[in-house]
Amino acid sequence: MANKEIPYKIYLTEDEMPKYWYNLRADMKNKPAPLLNPGTGKPMTAEELGAVFCEDLVKQELDNDTREYPVPREILDFYKMYRPSPLVRAYCLEKKLNTPAKIYYKFEGNNTSGSHKLNSAIAQAYYAKQQGLKGVTTETGAGQWGTALSMACAYFELDCKVYMVKVSYEQKPFRREVMRVYGADVTPSPSMTTQVGQKILREHPGTTGSLGCAISEAVETAVGTPGYRYVLGSVLNQVLLHQSVIGMEAKTAMDKYGIKPDVIIGCAGGGSNLGGLIAPFMGEKLRGEQDYEFIAVEPASCPSLTRGVFAYDFCDTGMVCPLAKMYTLGSDFIPAPNHAGGLRYHGMSPILSQLYDDGMMKAISVPQTRVFGAAETFARTEGILPAPESSHAICAAIDEAMKCKETGEEKTILFGLTGTGYFDLVAYQKYHDGQMDDYVPTDAELEQFRARLPKV
Amino acid sequence: MANKEIPYKIYLTEDEMPKYWYNLRADMKNKPAPLLNPGTGKPMTAEELGAVFCEDLVKQELDNDTREYPVPREILDFYKMYRPSPLVRAYCLEKKLNTPAKIYYKFEGNNTSGSHKLNSAIAQAYYAKQQGLKGVTTETGAGQWGTALSMACAYFELDCKVYMVKVSYEQKPFRREVMRVYGADVTPSPSMTTQVGQKILREHPGTTGSLGCAISEAVETAVGTPGYRYVLGSVLNQVLLHQSVIGMEAKTAMDKYGIKPDVIIGCAGGGSNLGGLIAPFMGEKLRGEQDYEFIAVEPASCPSLTRGVFAYDFCDTGMVCPLAKMYTLGSDFIPAPNHAGGLRYHGMSPILSQLYDDGMMKAISVPQTRVFGAAETFARTEGILPAPESSHAICAAIDEAMKCKETGEEKTILFGLTGTGYFDLVAYQKYHDGQMDDYVPTDAELEQFRARLPKV
Repeated sequence: MANKEIPYKIYLTEDEMPKYWYNLRADMKNKPAPLLNPGTGKPMTAEELGAVFCEDLVKQELDNDTREYPVPREILDFYKMYRPSPLVRAYCLEKKLNTPAKIYYKFEGNNTSGSHKLNSAIAQAYYAKQQGLKGVTTETGAGQWGTALSMACAYFELDCKVYMVKVSYEQKPFRREVMRVYGADVTPSPSMTTQVGQKILREHPGTTGSLGCAISEAVETAVGTPGYRYVLGSVLNQVLLHQSVIGMEAKTAMDKYGIKPDVIIGCAGGGSNLGGLIAPFMGEKLRGEQDYEFIAVEPASCPSLTRGVFAYDFCDTGMVCPLAKMYTLGSDFIPAPNHAGGLRYHGMSPILSQLYDDGMMKAISVPQTRVFGAAETFARTEGILPAPESSHAICAAIDEAMKCKETGEEKTILFGLTGTGYFDLVAYQKYHDGQMDDYVPTDAELEQFRARLPKV
Repeated sequence: MANKEIPYKIYLTEDEMPKYWYNLRADMKNKPAPLLNPGTGKPMTAEELGAVFCEDLVKQELDNDTREYPVPREILDFYKMYRPSPLVRAYCLEKKLNTPAKIYYKFEGNNTSGSHKLNSAIAQAYYAKQQGLKGVTTETGAGQWGTALSMACAYFELDCKVYMVKVSYEQKPFRREVMRVYGADVTPSPSMTTQVGQKILREHPGTTGSLGCAISEAVETAVGTPGYRYVLGSVLNQVLLHQSVIGMEAKTAMDKYGIKPDVIIGCAGGGSNLGGLIAPFMGEKLRGEQDYEFIAVEPASCPSLTRGVFAYDFCDTGMVCPLAKMYTLGSDFIPAPNHAGGLRYHGMSPILSQLYDDGMMKAISVPQTRVFGAAETFARTEGILPAPESSHAICAAIDEAMKCKETGEEKTILFGLTGTGYFDLVAYQKYHDGQMDDYVPTDAELEQFRARLPKV
């Protein structure tokens, strides 16, 4: 099939869509470290995790061995509503950059949640429904994950309680309204509805909230409400498992046309998109079948891989969650207020953290004004207004393509375009009005947070 | 090819994409009436129109005979960036409604302009570029057309001046910001930059503007600025020509699977989407080859087809444009302030007006709370938050499907889903908060506007 003319967009047929999720851990020699019970310091058991998470999802979370998980029929049907997502050849961007590189992107933004988050949301809602639960709780920052989960819960007729970081709740009323269309119950966090929320409000009156704090509230509510469990949109092993659908589709599409990427680039916040995109390619690398260069791109203002430490840390601010071994900046790290570009989580997926520590992938960080500059170039040439998160990957892909222009190399670049920026226009406005700076935390600042890491 | 299993989404390959636009007028026995010069009462000549519009577009506007217009290579390339759009089988909606009807929709919202408007914007920008122009002017209400034109102009590196209805400019800062990403110059209308704007502001201080008024300003600026022409996103024959790509793709996709629609439904404001969607099907009906039922759906608060008159009228409020023979409510008609659902133009495409007058299609009007109810049902089952405009068609399609449930008929319904509602969440919020009513103009009110129609 090689040497076929490559169309602008490659869509798989329904028959070609992946029928299983790929569990990258099965091919990792060094498995990600287990979650620890912060009280005992011992690995969390399935039973302990079952108080917080759905049963089937706990199995997936702990399973380092099963290589393939069949996608349940009901989830496949839902996937068919908005998938396969297109693999796009960025002909117009290549022309604009005048580069010999061949640029492809896997575009996950063409659904109402606006991002790849729906891939895992529908899976988690499905398993909650299977277990006979009444509802789920979660947190959301910018709102993509909350929207995705609201859509998934509406589909399976589950209740959905979302704790939305207060600053986003106030600045992004439209995201909130989309969740309302889907029947979700959205509470600004920190709130007085939980003990941890009350405590945080007492200690930091007037705080506008953080992702770590919203997680704590959502977990407390799930554990305290009969028939509820907590679900999370990133970081966890189960989420990366579901998100492997991104990479599996991308690889199938590339294989169909005989294309082999040299470099694979993804933005990295908690790691759900990057982990999903690279999964089958990384599998080949781990098995010694192929070689690829992987690049994680994070914001310079929240540099967990590039400037964090690989250590056990809390996943949340309230310290109600298990400890995860990951690259982290410290669970109370919050990026500077004028950080506009998403990807603001203090830690990183344990799977990706392990792979990075093992030297299987690179990581870079980029300042936000460069990210928005890349976003604008992309919007004008490829006709898609990208999410700030995705634009980190665009920025790195453009850099790679410009290197090829210098060297003359005809590299094939694949990057993940995780979503659209339709709800991020306040950030674009700041960029246009010159109100965006590139503040980067100092070593001394990072050291303060590091000093408070739990001793395990 | 019949009896194949129908996938959720049918995507044409690039090879299957239409290579020409279909000019419906070639098959109409009663041609749409010509545009008239308001000064002389005589048909506008190509020369007169050329002062306002690009040369090639004037040819297309006046050409009632050429059946097929090849799509220029550059436009085809741009189409490949965001087209083909999917033809979707609404399996989930059918299941929810428990109807024997088979529902399909042609989804035009998966591009950053958020609607089908880009199909004509890129064509008009192309011809402006070909003519060596410096830029174009236009008006925009809710902002879809302005965004689409900004994207098209950025692609061809043309200046783009947009007059945006003041109330939208203020209430939709994000639409404005998207246009800014694409480098457009956006002015709230009425403005002091034009004579007609100054006059309207003098006569109606504090007015929040209207589409008809913004058209007048854009035309005045185009005519008065060297190297500029005016472009329009709906109503005109040329626009329906470009939009035929919607129907051509839909028909090719349906033919491929041996599907014949019984009913074809589209929302109708100025008529660009409806005219494009029905074009090739209507062509078959006009040539006596097939029969279809066509339904135009308009808001009860702006009912140009169902309660207007078929007469010559101005296309704009300032009366600087030619007269068009169309179904109209009068050029100074503006829907009630709490009308949220788009489709607020006082007139209707002359082509569609003629077809409607000839009994070739039906028209209905629907109240806006029913429209938003349908929108929410659709969002929850099909996973796409629809534009209020598109939701008029959804509402009618659901009604048809429910009739089938009563009668047991297995009708095949096709409707146009013109766009997404990501920038319409203020309207959704009003609906949820019970702040939306179903005001409908009285006969006496409509009579007042009718009495001011020009005497031709």
